[in-house]
Amino acid sequence: MRVAVVGLGLIGGSIALGLDAEHDVRGYDSDAHTRDAARGRGLDVADRLEDVLPADAVIIATPLAAIVPTLETVIPRADHAVVMEVGSLKKAVAEHAERAPSDARIVGLHPMAGSTASGFAAADPGIFRGRPFLVVPTARSDQEAMAIAGDIARELGGEVTVCSADYHDRAVAMLSGAPLALALALSRAGADVAHLAGPGFEGATRLASTPPQLAEALLRGDREHLTEALAKVRAALDEVERGI
Amino acid sequence: MRVAVVGLGLIGGSIALGLDAEHDVRGYDSDAHTRDAARGRGLDVADRLEDVLPADAVIIATPLAAIVPTLETVIPRADHAVVMEVGSLKKAVAEHAERAPSDARIVGLHPMAGSTASGFAAADPGIFRGRPFLVVPTARSDQEAMAIAGDIARELGGEVTVCSADYHDRAVAMLSGAPLALALALSRAGADVAHLAGPGFEGATRLASTPPQLAEALLRGDREHLTEALAKVRAALDEVERGI
Repeated sequence: MRVAVVGLGLIGGSIALGLDAEHDVRGYDSDAHTRDAARGRGLDVADRLEDVLPADAVIIATPLAAIVPTLETVIPRADHAVVMEVGSLKKAVAEHAERAPSDARIVGLHPMAGSTASGFAAADPGIFRGRPFLVVPTARSDQEAMAIAGDIARELGGEVTVCSADYHDRAVAMLSGAPLALALALSRAGADVAHLAGPGFEGATRLASTPPQLAEALLRGDREHLTEALAKVRAALDEVERGI
Repeated sequence: MRVAVVGLGLIGGSIALGLDAEHDVRGYDSDAHTRDAARGRGLDVADRLEDVLPADAVIIATPLAAIVPTLETVIPRADHAVVMEVGSLKKAVAEHAERAPSDARIVGLHPMAGSTASGFAAADPGIFRGRPFLVVPTARSDQEAMAIAGDIARELGGEVTVCSADYHDRAVAMLSGAPLALALALSRAGADVAHLAGPGFEGATRLASTPPQLAEALLRGDREHLTEALAKVRAALDEVERGI
């Protein structure tokens, strides 16, 4: 299969490296240094986005804010390719898919394998192994497109769960947004004693060093679900406090 | 120096192993299996608490609830030994020291090196290396006793900070109690989606698997400072939420 990977950061780079042995992978990144680094690890990398096409599957792994604009560029040129994206929130993609041409094929993917590391230098095809890998259908996901998305997730070593965009975004608010907000709150509240911290506090505040662009996307990308998740956490914290 | 270590769990076992090369270390644990395990790693272990004495230094590393009772047993038999304890809260020890005989020598120690692991099987003399190691004087800490406590902390590889019991307990509420409470709250609030979690949520909820006895001691041992710490975290979380 000809697989195009657009965006070669931690996730896109890891996907490209993970699929390269079995597929004809071609990558692209808007950053020239990243393109060079990816070539340095043996990947075939195009200098222009358009040159990753034609392909049978396109995986968009840009920062969240660039996903819909990249879909807008790719879809008209995609022919029959299955276009996937691995953004951490799905609502905007779901809405975009509803407006897409009827022959477009769009599927959301989300490997739960991120970390505070970022960039191609941190790419590692092993990060998906045994990890939940969410496959999120859109209004433009036919059965074959879903099967291809699932195959890719499994080939990367992920454990596939299919869920709706709304379920996905609600889960991510609890699994990524809320822990990030708590880590930021704890690191601010404990700043004056952090020099005395042991591994417990360090682990609990690790997410506070999430790359700023990703942190902002996770905190501001879906205020509604995040507010709901944090309200649940506060209620659970009330309960923990009542128990002590 | 003859060093007695009472309680050979993760911390006491690690201390005994760490000091064994340079000192005449004798350990004791109330659990026979632990005593056997410690002997299996080459430590000299007594079958009765009294038999660790005489010693120049006694380090009490029992669970928190047993520290004051152990001090009560050890102090009358300690002769001129410096009696230290590595409990995670210091108020009860500070109060006990004020009532202790005038020739007693009592110093608090707290290596910030705990984890969710526990027991002698997890003991490792390397866990203190480069870690904050708090030395907490009591009403029965003379200059020589403080120097011995500091030397032991440094020999174990710790970075010594001297602070009062009240400062210690306030810091620990923020560094250990609050992260534990947040991890419990997050793991309860996110229980329905935890099967989809990536490393971020897993790291943020890791402390929820703190051994129950230690968790209870951290949450209930100093309600006042913990409540204060959690109020600061809630205020910081309000601020994070306002920013999104």
